[in-house]
Amino acid sequence: MSYRFIDACLRRPVDRTPIWLMRQAGRFLPEYRAVREKVTFLQLCKTPDLACEVTLQPVDILGTDAAILFSDILVVPEAMGMELHFGTGDDHGPQFPHPVRTHADLARLHIPDPEQELRYVNDTIRLLRKSLNVPLIGFCGAPWTLAAYMIEGRTSRSFEKAKATLFADEQLAHELLTKISDALIRYLQAQLDAGAQALQIFDSWAGALGPEDYRKFGAPYVAQVVQGLKRDGNTPVIVFGVETGELLAQLAATGADVVGVDWRVPLDDARGRVGPAVALQGNLDPASLFLPPEALEKRVARVLEQADAAGPGHVFNLGHGVLPTTPVESVKALVRQVHAHTPPR
Amino acid sequence: MSYRFIDACLRRPVDRTPIWLMRQAGRFLPEYRAVREKVTFLQLCKTPDLACEVTLQPVDILGTDAAILFSDILVVPEAMGMELHFGTGDDHGPQFPHPVRTHADLARLHIPDPEQELRYVNDTIRLLRKSLNVPLIGFCGAPWTLAAYMIEGRTSRSFEKAKATLFADEQLAHELLTKISDALIRYLQAQLDAGAQALQIFDSWAGALGPEDYRKFGAPYVAQVVQGLKRDGNTPVIVFGVETGELLAQLAATGADVVGVDWRVPLDDARGRVGPAVALQGNLDPASLFLPPEALEKRVARVLEQADAAGPGHVFNLGHGVLPTTPVESVKALVRQVHAHTPPR
Repeated sequence: MSYRFIDACLRRPVDRTPIWLMRQAGRFLPEYRAVREKVTFLQLCKTPDLACEVTLQPVDILGTDAAILFSDILVVPEAMGMELHFGTGDDHGPQFPHPVRTHADLARLHIPDPEQELRYVNDTIRLLRKSLNVPLIGFCGAPWTLAAYMIEGRTSRSFEKAKATLFADEQLAHELLTKISDALIRYLQAQLDAGAQALQIFDSWAGALGPEDYRKFGAPYVAQVVQGLKRDGNTPVIVFGVETGELLAQLAATGADVVGVDWRVPLDDARGRVGPAVALQGNLDPASLFLPPEALEKRVARVLEQADAAGPGHVFNLGHGVLPTTPVESVKALVRQVHAHTPPR
Repeated sequence: MSYRFIDACLRRPVDRTPIWLMRQAGRFLPEYRAVREKVTFLQLCKTPDLACEVTLQPVDILGTDAAILFSDILVVPEAMGMELHFGTGDDHGPQFPHPVRTHADLARLHIPDPEQELRYVNDTIRLLRKSLNVPLIGFCGAPWTLAAYMIEGRTSRSFEKAKATLFADEQLAHELLTKISDALIRYLQAQLDAGAQALQIFDSWAGALGPEDYRKFGAPYVAQVVQGLKRDGNTPVIVFGVETGELLAQLAATGADVVGVDWRVPLDDARGRVGPAVALQGNLDPASLFLPPEALEKRVARVLEQADAAGPGHVFNLGHGVLPTTPVESVKALVRQVHAHTPPR
């Protein structure tokens, strides 16, 4: 078992910079597409054998330093009682046909028992731990991001329903975000109990909120989740969002060990915002993987250089997920280059 | 004629804070929808009588302190020789069926004579100036944003084709961005000659680029356009983008008089990044307009307070365009509240 990834998360010395990639188990891999062809997306999430298979693929094919559980952040709202569909064609993307808008909608949601309604996740984790020789990352969506999906009912660009609902009724906001946070604490705790060795909280839509709103509706609930977990000193928590340049200090103050940074903020600048006590994860622009080898290499070198300037504690990753049409060869070259790098102590 | 808007852009004393709204001529107004029903979007842009009518609507209905020409940033690439469609249904949004990818594609583009291929824009401006009693803002898309559309061929979330093309072949990038900049200088100059009294350059996708890439592919070409214009000291230029927190200093250094700020950066923070020499435009979250009156009022007051702290030179606007389902009554209340505010000198 290699603990390079865990060590970097905890700002301990490492021989090489560790790397994993958001959406490393995904459509850019032909092996993933072959599995995915046979089942729907939700079936894949809920069938431990298959979820295990696609989780292992990038570790085997690319040689990443961590695996991330194959699942979806929206299985939690589903387990809380919300009907969930993944649409196709014109109506693509996840949809909740009965979104949360009122106190009555909220009252109908319950806090799931993870070993019942979300047992398939823990079964996948238990299965994975039998075959993995790198650490396994469990994950969930952050309270604000989940609440935004649950209120909008679908992906949005402007989140006016979510914002109008939460900003206009702070009691509803607090109750909904607290209920989600409570569900997430149990969910993540069960993932740890099943064998997850690190956790990432995806606040994918953090950047849709201005800093004052994130201080009220975002960061406090991420902090509740992070601080609500019982974990030992070798089990890091990562928080990640996109467009979080203005929010990095708030993310660092949640109690997480690692803050994910998108490509908009150079890692050495990010250090100034998060302080010395957390590790940084990121932050190559995913579009860089479409460049010819030499141009890609220069950009990877630049990220490593900025990470070195930011001081100890760097997990290499993209600034967002691997794009579906990314050439596999580019990702392999990226992993090789990062693994050739020894960060300063 | 009220010059409150021009004065604020140029950081001169004003009696009241001026306000206009991006997409103020748009779908949220029933009067706009009534006109739009009869014609396609491009027909509306290209029919001066109708474009004039919808440009005037928000000034009459809402009492904004400036009008903005009704048009689209993509009419320039179209005039440069690119076929442009506005799709419907599943394929909604603008599309260039023959995107730019190679030097040969670039060679086929020409720099249009604005009084020929884009005459309808200047005719609309000339018509507007006969009826307006507030200043008229002309506009264009910024070189990077237009290049990104021209290379992707359609709206994108990740811009991998645009980035791969420009980052991998810097000569092609420079030639394309220079050609677009040259076209924009002529286009904006013609708008000024026709009677536009201010200009806004929309770098809508600026925030997709990290700061080092924006320094190479974004800001220098905005600067070329701004500095290539012949204008008197009473004709301000505004530059605007979204997710530009890391780019504000670069935008301020282009020679523009006003920098637009989205809601992610409080205006008093923005002042620290842009320096004292430019005015600020923004930055209410467009979703705020879905809040009940009191909650909206508090948020507007907060923006005004931050603007006052940022010092002289504030044009009130949203941080992005008015959303199509925005209640008209909210926008009217917003305008009234801003007009009740006298900024400190």
